[in-house]
Amino acid sequence: MGRVTERRKVIRIRDGAVSTRPDTLVAEEPMEIRLNGKPLAITMRTPGDDFALAAGFLVSEGVLAEQSDLQNIVYCAGATADGSNTYNVVDVRTAPDVVVPDITLERNVYTTSSCGLCGKASLDAVRTTARWAVDDTHGGGTPPVLLDPELLAGLPDRLRAAQRVFDRTGGLHAAALFSEDGELLDVREDVGRHNAVDKLVGRALQSGALPLSRAVLLVSGRASFELAQKAVMAGIPVLAAVSAPSSLAVDLAAETGLTLVGFLRGASMNVYAGEHRIALRAAAAKG
Amino acid sequence: MGRVTERRKVIRIRDGAVSTRPDTLVAEEPMEIRLNGKPLAITMRTPGDDFALAAGFLVSEGVLAEQSDLQNIVYCAGATADGSNTYNVVDVRTAPDVVVPDITLERNVYTTSSCGLCGKASLDAVRTTARWAVDDTHGGGTPPVLLDPELLAGLPDRLRAAQRVFDRTGGLHAAALFSEDGELLDVREDVGRHNAVDKLVGRALQSGALPLSRAVLLVSGRASFELAQKAVMAGIPVLAAVSAPSSLAVDLAAETGLTLVGFLRGASMNVYAGEHRIALRAAAAKG
Repeated sequence: MGRVTERRKVIRIRDGAVSTRPDTLVAEEPMEIRLNGKPLAITMRTPGDDFALAAGFLVSEGVLAEQSDLQNIVYCAGATADGSNTYNVVDVRTAPDVVVPDITLERNVYTTSSCGLCGKASLDAVRTTARWAVDDTHGGGTPPVLLDPELLAGLPDRLRAAQRVFDRTGGLHAAALFSEDGELLDVREDVGRHNAVDKLVGRALQSGALPLSRAVLLVSGRASFELAQKAVMAGIPVLAAVSAPSSLAVDLAAETGLTLVGFLRGASMNVYAGEHRIALRAAAAKG
Repeated sequence: MGRVTERRKVIRIRDGAVSTRPDTLVAEEPMEIRLNGKPLAITMRTPGDDFALAAGFLVSEGVLAEQSDLQNIVYCAGATADGSNTYNVVDVRTAPDVVVPDITLERNVYTTSSCGLCGKASLDAVRTTARWAVDDTHGGGTPPVLLDPELLAGLPDRLRAAQRVFDRTGGLHAAALFSEDGELLDVREDVGRHNAVDKLVGRALQSGALPLSRAVLLVSGRASFELAQKAVMAGIPVLAAVSAPSSLAVDLAAETGLTLVGFLRGASMNVYAGEHRIALRAAAAKG
């Protein structure tokens, strides 16, 4: 357990030449998340930061919002036949005063016959479970986050430079938190794109840093609804993605006030929502 | 509902120049899959081929394996306040003789204390639920599938040529089925990488084509455990991915006899398992 990469034999074919050699692969193992002893979900993840992954998952689900909501996190039962712990079962115990919602497979959506099931229902579910608002009123009068496009443009290179495993395996998704000044605060990698973000958010929760109301979340791939949801649930005001967003991610951003940037490549980017946090006039003046 | 793409306003920043224009995004909507009337799962998907998505999902879960297992699939209840159907709730009715397993959040893994939870448990779960074997004994004495590396090398370009939506949105994962002669049999795109494969497998089930024992499955991204699982559950002997596989995907392939090819780019590829289906001598002779 606990290894970020594993070695396997591979047969390489390069322009017709065949060779056999060891290859480094990203490790993937199942992890069960339990909430107060009750099995809640299983995710296929890259081992490491398991407690943060569990905590961040529960922030996204609306169970945890701040450090004091958490009593403790432990590896539990999952023992193999020979009695050794697999370190793949994690139990999160909430503080006594935390009201645990009824989380089922129907997470993120309402499915009663009165509302149907549609994108709007997904948006409503985030709004009603979010404990932090993505707005600019935090911080006792400090001005809203305002990012220069040039600062944003430089973040993907800094993410790639900070990625430790990607170059060796090519199999990892990465996510990073930056300050509004472009300082790299944290970076996580995982075989699952959602897991990388959950690990970031969970580490922030564990250190008492939620809501991340002055941070920028950068993801190495696309921006789906669920990634936008994770940003909103952690109170993050800016989500930037190297690739495309989905329609529902844009809708969620527009509804919650999240700034959503996509196709962040070189000096180019698309701003889909929350453009008041991007210094467009500076960009236009230079254009 | 039912639209593969949607339009949203976007602010483009290109080397300092700012412009506003409409942009085409991949559509993302929640879909609830019900099994004999009982809610089973919700997936965020690109609308379209919804019945195939539900059927393919249930092949992966070990509920359906052939056309006759399926009684019918219908859009149901999900009505909005004004009474219109959202077309986001799909009910799959199985034939009377189909034994429906107890599917819970713990899918794919055993979590009893006697076995722990580990990669091995995930592999075991696939082996015990698979209705088709990925082996070379199908077809009444026909020889095993044997692919020339050059044929494999040509498939990604053919997938890209067949993708209808990707060029417009950049937000879609693609999956395709090819014959052993390299003929494109089917291609599907979705905001979710698993969904694209489920749609392919579901369409094959609906047309009575399972097991796909002479087909090659190509995916546009990485090869995770779950994608390898979907190939195995559909009886597909060859899974090829443009990007990296995970350790557990390789382990599953090795255990079930699946041929797993990764980093399929240009004339290069890595063969991680099932190399008996790749004509390596031909490649070596040319090298």
